[in-house]
Amino acid sequence: MDAAEFRRRGKEMVDLIADYLENIEQRPVYPDVEPGYLRSLIPEEAPEEPDTYEDVVKDIERVIMPGVTHWHSPYFYAYFPTANSFPAMLADMLSGAIGCIGFSWAASPACTELETVMMDWLGKMLKLPEDFIAGTHGQGGGVIQGTASEATLVALLAARSRAVRMILASDPQRPETGITSKLVAYSSDQAHCSVERAGMIAGVRMKKIPTEQSDKYAVQGETLRRMIQEDKAAGLIPFYFCATLGTTPSCAFDHITELGHVSGPALYVSKIWMHIDAAYAGSSFICPEFRPLLNGIEFADSFNFNPHKWLLVNFDCSTMWVRKRSDLIGAFKMDPLYLKHDHQESGRYFYTDNSLFRSLKMWFVFRMYGLKGLQDYIRKHVELAKEFESLVRADQRFEISADVVLGLVCFRLKGSNEVNETLLKRINNGRKIHLVPCQLSGQFVLRFAVCARTTESRHIREAWRLITQLAEEVMQELPH
Amino acid sequence: MDAAEFRRRGKEMVDLIADYLENIEQRPVYPDVEPGYLRSLIPEEAPEEPDTYEDVVKDIERVIMPGVTHWHSPYFYAYFPTANSFPAMLADMLSGAIGCIGFSWAASPACTELETVMMDWLGKMLKLPEDFIAGTHGQGGGVIQGTASEATLVALLAARSRAVRMILASDPQRPETGITSKLVAYSSDQAHCSVERAGMIAGVRMKKIPTEQSDKYAVQGETLRRMIQEDKAAGLIPFYFCATLGTTPSCAFDHITELGHVSGPALYVSKIWMHIDAAYAGSSFICPEFRPLLNGIEFADSFNFNPHKWLLVNFDCSTMWVRKRSDLIGAFKMDPLYLKHDHQESGRYFYTDNSLFRSLKMWFVFRMYGLKGLQDYIRKHVELAKEFESLVRADQRFEISADVVLGLVCFRLKGSNEVNETLLKRINNGRKIHLVPCQLSGQFVLRFAVCARTTESRHIREAWRLITQLAEEVMQELPH
Repeated sequence: MDAAEFRRRGKEMVDLIADYLENIEQRPVYPDVEPGYLRSLIPEEAPEEPDTYEDVVKDIERVIMPGVTHWHSPYFYAYFPTANSFPAMLADMLSGAIGCIGFSWAASPACTELETVMMDWLGKMLKLPEDFIAGTHGQGGGVIQGTASEATLVALLAARSRAVRMILASDPQRPETGITSKLVAYSSDQAHCSVERAGMIAGVRMKKIPTEQSDKYAVQGETLRRMIQEDKAAGLIPFYFCATLGTTPSCAFDHITELGHVSGPALYVSKIWMHIDAAYAGSSFICPEFRPLLNGIEFADSFNFNPHKWLLVNFDCSTMWVRKRSDLIGAFKMDPLYLKHDHQESGRYFYTDNSLFRSLKMWFVFRMYGLKGLQDYIRKHVELAKEFESLVRADQRFEISADVVLGLVCFRLKGSNEVNETLLKRINNGRKIHLVPCQLSGQFVLRFAVCARTTESRHIREAWRLITQLAEEVMQELPH
Repeated sequence: MDAAEFRRRGKEMVDLIADYLENIEQRPVYPDVEPGYLRSLIPEEAPEEPDTYEDVVKDIERVIMPGVTHWHSPYFYAYFPTANSFPAMLADMLSGAIGCIGFSWAASPACTELETVMMDWLGKMLKLPEDFIAGTHGQGGGVIQGTASEATLVALLAARSRAVRMILASDPQRPETGITSKLVAYSSDQAHCSVERAGMIAGVRMKKIPTEQSDKYAVQGETLRRMIQEDKAAGLIPFYFCATLGTTPSCAFDHITELGHVSGPALYVSKIWMHIDAAYAGSSFICPEFRPLLNGIEFADSFNFNPHKWLLVNFDCSTMWVRKRSDLIGAFKMDPLYLKHDHQESGRYFYTDNSLFRSLKMWFVFRMYGLKGLQDYIRKHVELAKEFESLVRADQRFEISADVVLGLVCFRLKGSNEVNETLLKRINNGRKIHLVPCQLSGQFVLRFAVCARTTESRHIREAWRLITQLAEEVMQELPH
């Protein structure tokens, strides 16, 4: 395929994409296929000679679409949203064409520089403390990671490296492996499973802090303080705490101001690295009314959220800020000759991963929506969630299982886990709307997350109509 | 921006991209900017109200292009290639629009399934042993990672997990942290810096195996055997060896058959995990004449290369195969309720990371080129490298610094490192062609890698003309 054919095929693809997104709600949101469905639909080996482009395009409907879970359908209420906007798609097209790999400043200066400035733009939208903004006298700044899981791990590794460095500085004879085996990290029992996995990868103890329904599933300062004290008494070295703002099960918020102060002096004075994971909720902090949820950020060493979830920037774009760039650079720096260049290490840039030109899509989205447009988008989703909450609350058979703060509603039928599991299975088998469950205090709970860019009030009401209809069926069949 | 406007802007973007790629060789390949150049060109904050799309597009030439290193210019000879093809770009557009996050089968079955089948297609193109193909009776299969660095780390973590499991099985009382501190991994001193970093991340010793120019920078079986014996005698536990096929400095190849047999029985019989990193060179193994370089794969536990380097599949697409899927699944499995679904864990699929629909671009590329088209592409690059090698060899002032096996030519002026450093600086400052250096046996060496899809013989000859012209200048100025 040459450039001339790409001009033609590219324009056809633009139409195909626009058609797909304009008509997405006519498709079943959740596919009706069994594992292994695809293998028999295509050859067992790649062709020797080229296929025609027409055949490839035909196979999109024949092979791919029957197995797609349509994340951008307005009837998709599962997991958390993933972003999808036209400006981001345009930027991604350009990024793919430029196709530079940004592993150093010299590998494509524009890539490095736009990323640093876009991270500042976004940091300012969130009103982050100046410490986290690169274009200031502070020592911090932002960098794009692929996912929040990656950011959690990167922060943990930087914290581990800092802890080992500090201990070795005061006791140079101590063997390094002996230190690692004493380190202990903490996170909520509500934290995303990737936090636990980060501990496994880094080879350090990761302790789960128990939370209670009565505390709205937030980590209590007192609990953390006690765990730290006990571990210190047992000869362990507390070094990392991952706070969550907007947990995956119920969108619960740890009180980071209280937690920051937990060990008498703030955590960061005690050199316990506090990382804040706000993967989903972070986008909302661009609205003044939700920004208080981030109060306490001044105690954090690092902070991360995913514009690729709720800020209209297509995957992947997970934005991470650190108070001290040198903490990251020091933990990961490698300096082979093939990566050296004239402008080596001005100390202003820091990268821990390869990336394409991911900042381009931030730039396109921020400019094409403007801050106000982005705020409107967040507020609309929160309103839709509140609308769904009202519908649930108005129905005596149902209950709300956790505070509705942003775009997630946790709810269930009053009754057994079994009846709720049956209801969810019935909902998803209908393939008209798609939800996933969570477990809260031993209860099986349905999560209703407002996800798609095009979700409107009518979709919410339609979803509720469907849920109540299926609930009626289920309640008639099962003992209540 | 609504779908109607996207139809218009998307088509404009297709033309912009085609224009960019058709005229790329008119641009200076390496940008003439200083660190910090971009910040002053754009506002300090995101706009409150939306900008116009026209303004955004205008800024591509004003703000971005002056700072771009044009990786797809036929005058780009730095690092290793990164792929850029029209079929891959079309697939990426579609992937962005579908925008599903493939963290489980249910999150989008087509995403999981096409990935598994495309990995089989590619594995068959490489004639991998059946053990590594998912659609067989074997226990292995392939999975797409973001980068070779990630694959190296994933393999190391899986190996660490397996080693700890095996030791605990025979000695359940042994503390796990005590085991990790005894583990030792190995790789060539020519291995990519990310291998060393993987060791840092995993918190295990990573020993570099010395190589010699006289052995063509390949790890010798005898050297590895001796190191393993010494470490065992010292009470350490050898558990991982990362072999490299096509090193970054000089495209050297470890002899994996010899290495596989190193400790009497094959490494994998001794339960030392052999991972093969063929990030760049792996693509060439689809050609029968280069496939012998992969002989010995039957001793490996895992194997990785980057179609996003040399197989026309745009970044990111790093393909990794393992002999036993359960080794990966066991090392990373997390099972929160919000990720459970009816078709949980059939054992056929395994994922260690989120991803978009990265297999779509493999599918488009394999079908639009066909195996023959892909082989032709590899062969053309190798021929161009051989052509450059002949030019260098025909000039008495220069020498070739390492065997030219694929698309990389390592060469230098006979003379001091200083004269070669000066030559390289002069070349890159000219901004007509772009190269990076490496160090081989203490010598400063220039790396000439055939990179762009559109590089032709005339570009190679033009590059050589420029290099010899600058060499003449430098040799006149500096004492030879």
